Amino acid sequence: MKLIVDMMGSDLGSKITVEAVNAFLKEHPDVTIFAVGRKEELTSLDSRAIVVDARDVIAMDAGPLDVMRAKESSMLKSLNLYLSEEADGMVSAGGTGAYLSAATIKLKLIPGVERAALVSPFPTLKENHYVIILDIGANNENTVSQLVQFAKMGQIYAKSVLKIENPGVFLLSNGSESGKGSPLIIETHRTLKEQNFPNFKGNIEGRDALNGEADVIVADGFTGNVFLKTTEGIAKMIGKLLKDAFTERTSSKVGYLFARKSIRNMKRKLDYKNTGGAMLLGINGVVVKAHGSSDGTAFKNAIEVAYKMARHNVIKEIKEKMDE
Amino acid sequence: MKLIVDMMGSDLGSKITVEAVNAFLKEHPDVTIFAVGRKEELTSLDSRAIVVDARDVIAMDAGPLDVMRAKESSMLKSLNLYLSEEADGMVSAGGTGAYLSAATIKLKLIPGVERAALVSPFPTLKENHYVIILDIGANNENTVSQLVQFAKMGQIYAKSVLKIENPGVFLLSNGSESGKGSPLIIETHRTLKEQNFPNFKGNIEGRDALNGEADVIVADGFTGNVFLKTTEGIAKMIGKLLKDAFTERTSSKVGYLFARKSIRNMKRKLDYKNTGGAMLLGINGVVVKAHGSSDGTAFKNAIEVAYKMARHNVIKEIKEKMDE
Repeated sequence: MKLIVDMMGSDLGSKITVEAVNAFLKEHPDVTIFAVGRKEELTSLDSRAIVVDARDVIAMDAGPLDVMRAKESSMLKSLNLYLSEEADGMVSAGGTGAYLSAATIKLKLIPGVERAALVSPFPTLKENHYVIILDIGANNENTVSQLVQFAKMGQIYAKSVLKIENPGVFLLSNGSESGKGSPLIIETHRTLKEQNFPNFKGNIEGRDALNGEADVIVADGFTGNVFLKTTEGIAKMIGKLLKDAFTERTSSKVGYLFARKSIRNMKRKLDYKNTGGAMLLGINGVVVKAHGSSDGTAFKNAIEVAYKMARHNVIKEIKEKMDE
Repeated sequence: MKLIVDMMGSDLGSKITVEAVNAFLKEHPDVTIFAVGRKEELTSLDSRAIVVDARDVIAMDAGPLDVMRAKESSMLKSLNLYLSEEADGMVSAGGTGAYLSAATIKLKLIPGVERAALVSPFPTLKENHYVIILDIGANNENTVSQLVQFAKMGQIYAKSVLKIENPGVFLLSNGSESGKGSPLIIETHRTLKEQNFPNFKGNIEGRDALNGEADVIVADGFTGNVFLKTTEGIAKMIGKLLKDAFTERTSSKVGYLFARKSIRNMKRKLDYKNTGGAMLLGINGVVVKAHGSSDGTAFKNAIEVAYKMARHNVIKEIKEKMDE
């Protein structure tokens, strides 16, 4: 198996991507990694990694055209290498917008897929259960038929990668009743019902999205992105208030000393670093986006996701399903 | 001042509404309250409250037509009383959908207002600072001109009730840059810029919505409702995980004993009960929706909100502004 890793573009620099690749290679003797970036920053890489020099780094806020013009950038070089090496997957922590559009231009949509979707697993209240939510931001606007495709792709992902046998699919809406929703959601609901979409379970509200009931939740890209960022915002807000609470007086500081192990466990459960980032579904290739502020563990987990997706032939499954 | 209170429709029964009205009247000798509900349940009300008997209670999931047909319901009787008494405000904890539509039918939209919006203040990371977010669920779909009106109404509310001098207005979007958003948000952004809308500050993401930067955030009703319910969901999830963390081992239980005062303070900051519920803006009257699961304090706060809105002539201000 061949995986391409864009070594630049992480907020924390190439130090953490080097650490991640080395840790990954130690556990996966069967994988070849092409490490693309400034070669002088990659000297401590495991000798099994194949270094490909690239001088430029794409800025976090770069647009699609910027990447396509940046011939010497690690991101574009990685995508070109994906094609020339017929690789099995790619990981980058670079700017989302640029990465998604460049990957779509280079690797192209799977025939029959109208739009790619950005997907991420979210932790839930159920122990060891993640829910797949898509689209969380590849699109600003979607149609009914695009949401139906997202439902299919999400279900394939949940089945092949998360090993959920018969994943239940919901639509994110402003009410759980079938008549509730934006015009787009009401129409998508009707369509999925008419098609007897396998294990379609209706609408779900934001307040229940992470209670563990759903395996896959479908949203248009605008709403999904608002959902994603709102969860981040509230988690950050509560984290800040909790920190204040534990430091505001002596007794609460003492309390923290006693409870800290449990509090840390809780934080770990909520940490995006465990999930390894987001995936772009619907294109001819495994494209994983690591969080910009990933540390070594998070970035390694992103490589693990690409590995799993390639190992379980997710792209092939989507291709076959879209032909049906 | 005359306020109408629907004494039924709360999940916790008329006991808490009686408690709330009594507490409110003690602090406001200048207010007359019409208390509408089953009179045998209202015998311990302060003698200054005027009891109006109503035999029926609207179900939480009732539709608009159900209310209009339920002549003996406390909700419809309250709305009729609002008109006949030329009251200054009304409070109910009954089902949102039914309440909003019946209030709109009975009290009617302010001339020039296209759609009413449901508004709520949200706590932020800034001490004692709330952000007004609208629409959080009166509509399933909105147009550009409706969102522009929401911006105006939200600003009036923040200025008159929250006493924020020059409230900054943002649009909820999937990116803070001006080109980001659904087609609706991009177009609304352009329109507000063109109009030189006072103190319009651009887009804000869900992750920054509650950091204290914004005074007013405008969203279409579908997205706003997803935002509201996602904040509720994440807060509930973290609350649950925190509870688990504090009970999972002896040391963490001891930790809780030491930290509990601070933890409770933190919970209070996040508690919707302090804000008193949501308001319907854009109709000819002060219409406050208390949370269905309000306790006595929360329900009293909802009456306080109606009182403040009436005292500060919010409806008159909206009328004048819409004429401009």
